[in-house]
Amino acid sequence: MDKILRVKMGADGGPQIVVEPLGDYAGMGGRAMTSAVVAKEVPPLCHPLGADNKLVIAPGMLSGSAAAMSGRISVGCKSPLTGGIKEANSGGQPSQMLARLGCAAIVIEGRPADDTLYKMVVNKDGAKIEADNSLKMLGNYDLVEKMKAAYGDKVACISIGPAGEMKMSAASIAFTDMEQRPTRHAGRGGVGAVMGSKGLKVIVVDDEGTARREPADPDKFKAANKAFVAGLKKHPVTGEGLPAYGTNVLTNVINEAGGYPTNNFSTGQFAGASKISGEAQAELENTRGGEGSATHGCHRGCVIRCSGTFYGKNGNFLTKQPEYETVWAHGGNCGIDDLDAIAELDRMDDDFGLDTIEMGATIGVAMEGGVAKFGDAEAAINLLKEVGQGTPLGRILGNGASVTGQVFGVERVPVVKRQAMPAYDPRSVQGIGVTYATTTMGADHTAGYSVTANVLGVGGNVDGTKPEGQVELSRNLQIATAAIDATGMCLFIAFAILDQAETFQALLDVLSGFTGQPCTADDVTDLGKSILKQEREFNAAAGFTSKDDRLPAFFKTEPIAPHDVTFGVSDEELDSVFNF
Amino acid sequence: MDKILRVKMGADGGPQIVVEPLGDYAGMGGRAMTSAVVAKEVPPLCHPLGADNKLVIAPGMLSGSAAAMSGRISVGCKSPLTGGIKEANSGGQPSQMLARLGCAAIVIEGRPADDTLYKMVVNKDGAKIEADNSLKMLGNYDLVEKMKAAYGDKVACISIGPAGEMKMSAASIAFTDMEQRPTRHAGRGGVGAVMGSKGLKVIVVDDEGTARREPADPDKFKAANKAFVAGLKKHPVTGEGLPAYGTNVLTNVINEAGGYPTNNFSTGQFAGASKISGEAQAELENTRGGEGSATHGCHRGCVIRCSGTFYGKNGNFLTKQPEYETVWAHGGNCGIDDLDAIAELDRMDDDFGLDTIEMGATIGVAMEGGVAKFGDAEAAINLLKEVGQGTPLGRILGNGASVTGQVFGVERVPVVKRQAMPAYDPRSVQGIGVTYATTTMGADHTAGYSVTANVLGVGGNVDGTKPEGQVELSRNLQIATAAIDATGMCLFIAFAILDQAETFQALLDVLSGFTGQPCTADDVTDLGKSILKQEREFNAAAGFTSKDDRLPAFFKTEPIAPHDVTFGVSDEELDSVFNF
Repeated sequence: MDKILRVKMGADGGPQIVVEPLGDYAGMGGRAMTSAVVAKEVPPLCHPLGADNKLVIAPGMLSGSAAAMSGRISVGCKSPLTGGIKEANSGGQPSQMLARLGCAAIVIEGRPADDTLYKMVVNKDGAKIEADNSLKMLGNYDLVEKMKAAYGDKVACISIGPAGEMKMSAASIAFTDMEQRPTRHAGRGGVGAVMGSKGLKVIVVDDEGTARREPADPDKFKAANKAFVAGLKKHPVTGEGLPAYGTNVLTNVINEAGGYPTNNFSTGQFAGASKISGEAQAELENTRGGEGSATHGCHRGCVIRCSGTFYGKNGNFLTKQPEYETVWAHGGNCGIDDLDAIAELDRMDDDFGLDTIEMGATIGVAMEGGVAKFGDAEAAINLLKEVGQGTPLGRILGNGASVTGQVFGVERVPVVKRQAMPAYDPRSVQGIGVTYATTTMGADHTAGYSVTANVLGVGGNVDGTKPEGQVELSRNLQIATAAIDATGMCLFIAFAILDQAETFQALLDVLSGFTGQPCTADDVTDLGKSILKQEREFNAAAGFTSKDDRLPAFFKTEPIAPHDVTFGVSDEELDSVFNF
Repeated sequence: MDKILRVKMGADGGPQIVVEPLGDYAGMGGRAMTSAVVAKEVPPLCHPLGADNKLVIAPGMLSGSAAAMSGRISVGCKSPLTGGIKEANSGGQPSQMLARLGCAAIVIEGRPADDTLYKMVVNKDGAKIEADNSLKMLGNYDLVEKMKAAYGDKVACISIGPAGEMKMSAASIAFTDMEQRPTRHAGRGGVGAVMGSKGLKVIVVDDEGTARREPADPDKFKAANKAFVAGLKKHPVTGEGLPAYGTNVLTNVINEAGGYPTNNFSTGQFAGASKISGEAQAELENTRGGEGSATHGCHRGCVIRCSGTFYGKNGNFLTKQPEYETVWAHGGNCGIDDLDAIAELDRMDDDFGLDTIEMGATIGVAMEGGVAKFGDAEAAINLLKEVGQGTPLGRILGNGASVTGQVFGVERVPVVKRQAMPAYDPRSVQGIGVTYATTTMGADHTAGYSVTANVLGVGGNVDGTKPEGQVELSRNLQIATAAIDATGMCLFIAFAILDQAETFQALLDVLSGFTGQPCTADDVTDLGKSILKQEREFNAAAGFTSKDDRLPAFFKTEPIAPHDVTFGVSDEELDSVFNF
């Protein structure tokens, strides 16, 4: 990866693409790249939808290589949802393909003079951008069909749906998967609204005629990668649980642990959990069309294979197998126990280009505000339709839980830094509460997935219902995660590398074999710390203080069943997370 | 004033009123009282609509006495609009009446267990509160008629309309005027939403059987008050301009100065200004019913008399004479040059219980977002109707310009701390820009009305189009204003006391004569500083930093016609406002 594509949307005479050398950004990938560009180039107090914001799309350091699991991509900007720095991460095919094209980052900057919509194509011959207003307000599915028809059945797409065009704060950016479907999303923080504000509908990526990125030390790399894959295969989560049921294997686990936020975080267990669990989902899928509950990867090079396909009642493809957080958001959090309804909501989110977590949390808040009844799946579907149509109610919901709470006068709004909390209650999984509170991202489970030691017994055991030990747990995970997000590795490798020292060593050797430079555990830690520090500095310059590193008050005053606990980590402890 | 009424909405068995001695709050009034109670008793990070927030209603130090102009009242809380401390100030009758009842503050705290709506009555025999769900969703006008029928034609009302009940962030609290109409409002920052969240619809105030508050040194007080009134009468603004045309005398003045924000702050002069000016308004009123353009006070003891009455086309009372900021907000800022339409919007704001400034700015943002066309008065009226009805679109608008901008993806949103800017462009009136940026209140002209020296030549001359001298100007005015807001004096006395040393001395003597204690200019300055410091500390604890003391970026990048200037006061200078 030797170049950055700068897409200057506001250039005189129309958008221009400038190919730049890497300069200061050499060697960076994924979150390290996106956060570095945003921190260096975006004024922290700019309007997120204005010309000064930049949208950065960056494959990981190892993307495009033969390293297993290296197909994740990072999207960075100043977030229209949180007002802070954002890195939203996605699977799908574009990471590997952009990396093979030598493209370390696409930086989309400025803003076109009018509301013309643009399409960009990147292939081995270079990159070009052109107006195409025929794409306006297309859903991601129709858009991708159109791109397939024009560019063939091997290209990948990075695109926004109507939500992004309407600049909604819950808008995602879709990345096509191995089946060329727009099912993988950089979901969080409204990155799709920023792409929409730039007038860019889609980036078509075509890696035909390119080669795999080769390691500096092929022997070391190959051996390490083999050991790394073996480690993933032998760990019960990455080798068994995830391949068997996908991420939704967690529903029963988290529900049994009393950490399953139900009816807008009112209680920690959902009576209908067993009806929407991964096990129930697999059983249902096996009665439908296609490959049943068999799983596959979301990108080339995946060996965990947690993705699946959801076929509707008519036996036809409806959507990818909804992920655990989606099933929770549209399911238990709204009191809904109907997998078909949840799958339909997931399909609509993907098509409109919306973050499933934010939308489920938002509908939960709307239900608490009296807009619909908990458990009413049909009402939830109708609400989401309004978002796609951009009605006033739809625009409220499409701007997320915080706006929806304000508009409907709801006090119990489960957000941090205005971003909705995911599928783990911070009172019974207090380590994730520390992550929600303190990560630079707004409430985000992937920023430091303390569910590992709090619930799953991975990487040790720290009782999730008590405040003790959570800060250290979250801190270490946040540091490690920032580094993993820079490599392009799927975060799910964490299960194996936390538990198996030899698998962690194999990862270090993969990195070292690829770059030809030494790579120690300390190097990885230093990388993670440096990314987090940069992000914290951006947020401070954007006006964030320790007061933004807090959970909403009701998590400290409303005990949650069944454990009857409140969030007990003190403010002083929270303020010590970034003491490095 | 020897007591505080604590209204405990969440008490077991239903709301209770506890009469308390003043304790630490002895001697305080108005903003000094409200900000002290909020700073001491409200957790800075609480939810503004939650049980922990408190609504404080406090007459000024001199209210209830014979001091001229002393009938202003302060309302304080944590603001649902800004998230910071709020003091919203109103005229009307309740201040004098509560003060005569000995009531230095009403503190409404906690929250009822259900959605029952309550009514409170304060009279010489005490205070009581009772459920009255028949009042639900009444407009302020119908509500007041009902209270008059029940409690007689001499009571005053403090009430919320449907907007407050719906907990909208632009909801105001209405205070009846001398004609027993709900035309005076503590408008800004969503104080009505806090009253709504407490389930309190109205406070009926009946001062029958009470006496005027008597000064400690009657001779000194009487002589000083006489000199003070003489000073107000001889100043051209308070003695001539305001009595002749009301506050709308400013339309032509500010427009000519190029400081009249037009079409959502796109330009500094409005082609239709002369059609909605105070002069045009007086001419129109003289062709209609009632007293024509004759003015009167909004409360007993007013000698400036800037209030008027607006009669509709049918010759019947429609609303009070719309104030300058209202005429601007619903007029020039939306490209509307129709006084009848503006008056109708003003009436609806008063009836629904909405801040006219926030609503006009919000409709301007909505127009920029394509919801309606600039200049379309009928569309503006229909939009405001939606707010009263609580439709989804109405709920968006009723939550103010910041939410509306986010929901419709608009970048140019003229807010500071999420509160909409009033009727003076901060590029051509840069002193008011400093006030907007730095006041604890969010964009608020009354917090430090630098229009005086920037445009009106009152209290000196500081060129409004240049950054030089604005920080000192705004600082001094903010300090003086905080003190005036504590006295219960109408802020319009500032014109005379800034220009006439003997009138300022008379004010000091009025204060000293009333309390029997010495009162120097330094004492007044110290009072103002102490109030501001307390407010700044609250905001810091609520998470505000210097980054919140900034104007939106477009004021620094978009020059405004006709002066072709941008806001030029540097961040460093802004950060020196509170260097005392």
